Amino acid sequence: MIAILGCGLIGESWAGLMTAHGHDVILWDPAPAALTGIEQRIVRLRGEVRTAMGHAAEADGGVRIATTLAEAVGDADWIQENAPEAAALKHDLYRQIEAVNARAPIASSTSSLTWSELSPALSDPGRLLTAHPFNPPHLMPLVEIYTPDADLRRRAVDFYAGLGREPVTLRKDAVGHIANRLASALWREAVNLVAEGIADVETVDRALVHGPGLRWSVIGAHMAYHLGGGPGGIETYLRHLGPSQQRRWTSLGTPELTPSVCAMLVEGVDAEAAGRSLEQIAAARDRALVRVLAARREGMNDAA
Amino acid sequence: MIAILGCGLIGESWAGLMTAHGHDVILWDPAPAALTGIEQRIVRLRGEVRTAMGHAAEADGGVRIATTLAEAVGDADWIQENAPEAAALKHDLYRQIEAVNARAPIASSTSSLTWSELSPALSDPGRLLTAHPFNPPHLMPLVEIYTPDADLRRRAVDFYAGLGREPVTLRKDAVGHIANRLASALWREAVNLVAEGIADVETVDRALVHGPGLRWSVIGAHMAYHLGGGPGGIETYLRHLGPSQQRRWTSLGTPELTPSVCAMLVEGVDAEAAGRSLEQIAAARDRALVRVLAARREGMNDAA
Repeated sequence: MIAILGCGLIGESWAGLMTAHGHDVILWDPAPAALTGIEQRIVRLRGEVRTAMGHAAEADGGVRIATTLAEAVGDADWIQENAPEAAALKHDLYRQIEAVNARAPIASSTSSLTWSELSPALSDPGRLLTAHPFNPPHLMPLVEIYTPDADLRRRAVDFYAGLGREPVTLRKDAVGHIANRLASALWREAVNLVAEGIADVETVDRALVHGPGLRWSVIGAHMAYHLGGGPGGIETYLRHLGPSQQRRWTSLGTPELTPSVCAMLVEGVDAEAAGRSLEQIAAARDRALVRVLAARREGMNDAA
Repeated sequence: MIAILGCGLIGESWAGLMTAHGHDVILWDPAPAALTGIEQRIVRLRGEVRTAMGHAAEADGGVRIATTLAEAVGDADWIQENAPEAAALKHDLYRQIEAVNARAPIASSTSSLTWSELSPALSDPGRLLTAHPFNPPHLMPLVEIYTPDADLRRRAVDFYAGLGREPVTLRKDAVGHIANRLASALWREAVNLVAEGIADVETVDRALVHGPGLRWSVIGAHMAYHLGGGPGGIETYLRHLGPSQQRRWTSLGTPELTPSVCAMLVEGVDAEAAGRSLEQIAAARDRALVRVLAARREGMNDAA
């Protein structure tokens, strides 16, 4: 039994993924409104998981809704915590969990807090790990794991791999883990291009989607430079083009999110959205992800 | 007739793309060795274009090999220049072109030089544009265009769109155009993560491919933050999370490509390659790209 604590977009997406893999889940959210209609949403998310993964339908895991936190975690073997990104709130939750369940791993979906910030709340910090999914978790394969405990780390890798995810483990605790640090670095330059008037929001997004984004969906950045180095690979690249890359780095922008830059971004995103609602854009993203994931299944493993 | 000047990986890839769309091409390279066996390679590349694009085979364009530059450009309506990235060399080439063809646009595939650096060689700079493809051009849709001439810009957008590409136009000349600036910004942090010992090369690449890279293959970075802002979209995101994003930016790494960092990268890429040759990795990348492109064709347009 897996307890899912916090049932917004992340929690319900985890539930779709986990039940698609036959796990029973028990849901808890302090706001009852979050749970209204959630069973139907989980059925839809599970369908997307199966289309993307292409695996034959296993028996669905069961979905139960708990009325109290104690009911949710009492019998749990794994606890996936998706509370808001506030350390004090998560600390309080962990103390309540400890009072009723002393053994199940507590996996925090936190994107912006670190293990070191979260663990002091627990008398047994060895049961805590950060397991950050990429949104939406039922489609995006990445789960970023950190815990200093080697046994728990191995157990977590097995657990998320068993959900068809691609778990990666950090050697050190880092704010933003890996993926959000990369995303933040890229976005800084994306903002700079707009702020400097080199291109508008939509043009920058199109360049990313049809260029580096597409390429990074099948090959990593380091490996791409290996291929960019000619017959000598990355060693040659670094020897010949390392210095010019380093000069390029110093020429990248360091924009500030001033009111006028923010206005350019809001206006540009508005133009790019072209009247589509957030829901329509997210649904289109997920339809495209389902298709791309299904395609990658066939051609990806040898390229990654 | 399209003249392709410089027939390394970029030139032959352009030839595969252009002939798949029914254009006749004439190839020239100062090193005859580059042209050995090129017809067979173009046939293979054309096959990949058609699988990726999913369009019914048009009549193939013809392929001719020129023995002199004058023969290549004499009758050309469009000139795609893929010479090495050295301004003096390209300047010299442009002067030779001017002597035998006074009217066809000269589109430079340059990745690192700018229009402003290249145009002074021409007595008629108005015929020059930068048209930077993303490697490999026969599969990657992006072409980044800059010319200050609005007519030529429109003509170039039509030309590359007619090749099934996604042309984007810059408002200002910029070193690295858009995509390589974004890629460089991301790679800086990717190097930092390795240099700081947070994760190894392969882990960083896996996090990118299964996380942000995959997402950016269907939705841009600006639009992703629009969806990350909750019901208020990017306006809410900027208001509530702008300050923390700006703090994150200042905490990103500014690594130097010292000998020890370079050694970590070379060793890490070597481990990730796991014995596969550059050719095997590039072929696997291209197989995966063909599949992903075919999948995106169906689900993409509404998400981009």
